[in-house]
Amino acid sequence: MQDLWKKIELAHERIKPHIHRTPILTSSAINRIAGGEILFKCENFQKAGAFKMRGALNAILQLDETVKNKGVATHSSGNHGGALALAARLNSIKAYVVMPETAPQIKENAVREYGATVIKCRPTLQAREETLEKVIRQYGAIFIHPYNNFDVLAGQGTAAKELLEEFRDLDFVIAPVGGGGLLSGTALSVHNINPRTIIIGAEPQGADDAKRSLIAGKIIPSVNPDTIADGLLTSLGDKTFPIIKKHVKDIITVSDAEIISAMRLIWERMKIIVESSSATVLAVVMKNKEMFQGKKTGVILSGGNVDLSNLPW
Amino acid sequence: MQDLWKKIELAHERIKPHIHRTPILTSSAINRIAGGEILFKCENFQKAGAFKMRGALNAILQLDETVKNKGVATHSSGNHGGALALAARLNSIKAYVVMPETAPQIKENAVREYGATVIKCRPTLQAREETLEKVIRQYGAIFIHPYNNFDVLAGQGTAAKELLEEFRDLDFVIAPVGGGGLLSGTALSVHNINPRTIIIGAEPQGADDAKRSLIAGKIIPSVNPDTIADGLLTSLGDKTFPIIKKHVKDIITVSDAEIISAMRLIWERMKIIVESSSATVLAVVMKNKEMFQGKKTGVILSGGNVDLSNLPW
Repeated sequence: MQDLWKKIELAHERIKPHIHRTPILTSSAINRIAGGEILFKCENFQKAGAFKMRGALNAILQLDETVKNKGVATHSSGNHGGALALAARLNSIKAYVVMPETAPQIKENAVREYGATVIKCRPTLQAREETLEKVIRQYGAIFIHPYNNFDVLAGQGTAAKELLEEFRDLDFVIAPVGGGGLLSGTALSVHNINPRTIIIGAEPQGADDAKRSLIAGKIIPSVNPDTIADGLLTSLGDKTFPIIKKHVKDIITVSDAEIISAMRLIWERMKIIVESSSATVLAVVMKNKEMFQGKKTGVILSGGNVDLSNLPW
Repeated sequence: MQDLWKKIELAHERIKPHIHRTPILTSSAINRIAGGEILFKCENFQKAGAFKMRGALNAILQLDETVKNKGVATHSSGNHGGALALAARLNSIKAYVVMPETAPQIKENAVREYGATVIKCRPTLQAREETLEKVIRQYGAIFIHPYNNFDVLAGQGTAAKELLEEFRDLDFVIAPVGGGGLLSGTALSVHNINPRTIIIGAEPQGADDAKRSLIAGKIIPSVNPDTIADGLLTSLGDKTFPIIKKHVKDIITVSDAEIISAMRLIWERMKIIVESSSATVLAVVMKNKEMFQGKKTGVILSGGNVDLSNLPW
């Protein structure tokens, strides 16, 4: 997997001029509550409001001209769609985003605002894939997978790379896990910069397929996931799972109530807006205080795209 | 008023080790909407969640030992109470905070959490002053006025000082105005660092006593103010008004609807939490685009203490 680390280093050079180097924040109030030091890598401040911009840009910047002329396509219930749309617009490329009818309105609005064509479908993986297939046939656009793509996951890994560049001596790094793009990229970066740092995935109890996959040693698909963390519903992919299996020590699950409580703690104490999927990482710390007490833990706040008219409290 | 600028410089040295040097953020999305460059000085990230910590600390750090033993007291509907309570706790001093029954619950909770004694009273200036008088008589505590106090307003001026130290060439600086502590301190700092920068106050239409005072050339008290901006209800003081009269070019008023819209824009685009009083500064820019178009404007985001269960949209 040394090649993949090289890919992350190249990705970082490639996307650096186009992304924000997001701040790493701390909160003395939260440190006091947690009993340890927590460093928050704030990808909620990233362009398009999520780390997804890193992977989307890394993929798009490598397309050759003939492909660019036909555009890019994906299916996404949220942030990957927005990031791909914005990354495409910045490179004057057309983007087609297949979205399930159940996607949060604010995320659909963002995709449209960034100039992409939105194609709605029923909220099943089958409907998403079939609709995408049609779009690709019709426009000849190239599919940029939300996570099961080495260029995408290498891009996502640059967030943890920035975190470790500033704080090398972390005891733990925690990232949320849905399809595993962020977690696999994070694991590669952390392992290559500081192999002694323990890497943990944070997953909602109502979508605990990654936890079960890690235990089973093979991909268990996500079936009827039920959680407030709408960015973490998808199944692992054959490119992300092997990396997670190799480098991730454990996946810890948290309930929706724990996620909401952690989300509110971040809003109230840090005065920053993070979405529910992001709050899983702090929920893991709060639920397992003895594990993180006196330790230095880096967490990735994955995004900040929230429907402010529909908050979970 | 040269003495007051010296007071601000000394205040900054005095409080620096105890406060956050808050970040100055920009948003390309908001710049695009506004048609100019806006630099947000983020006092919502300050300790106790507001710029008030600067003034409270500057006052408390200058108390002598005999006074310290008796404690400090104030009346406040919100952030000054919280800041004084925290500043007192950090210096092992007792704090008594008289709060009107109508104060936002979250702000009362903060004052209690920081260890101060809360004394409730009816929501009139008379009741506040009488209750405070009793507290002072009973405990011998020293009164730290929320704004009409040179040590307090000098402390508040350090936020703009930090802003101008990083961005000297601003065309405009906008700060909210309630009692005028922040605006007068801001005006002194801005004028002394760059006399060509135009200083503007942002005020809610439903509490436009500062605007009317500036026009009348004398303090017009705030009577029955009615606005969502609960931090901007008070009248100017005899120490803040002369400074504002001398250095502030104009006070621009905005409606509650404009404040709420600007507040939501900041939350959605910048992913940070600011309270309604803070949003007045962006509301002023959005309402007067021709004035700020192509210009470089610094704005003070005064605080981030919001009741998340009771948002105005």
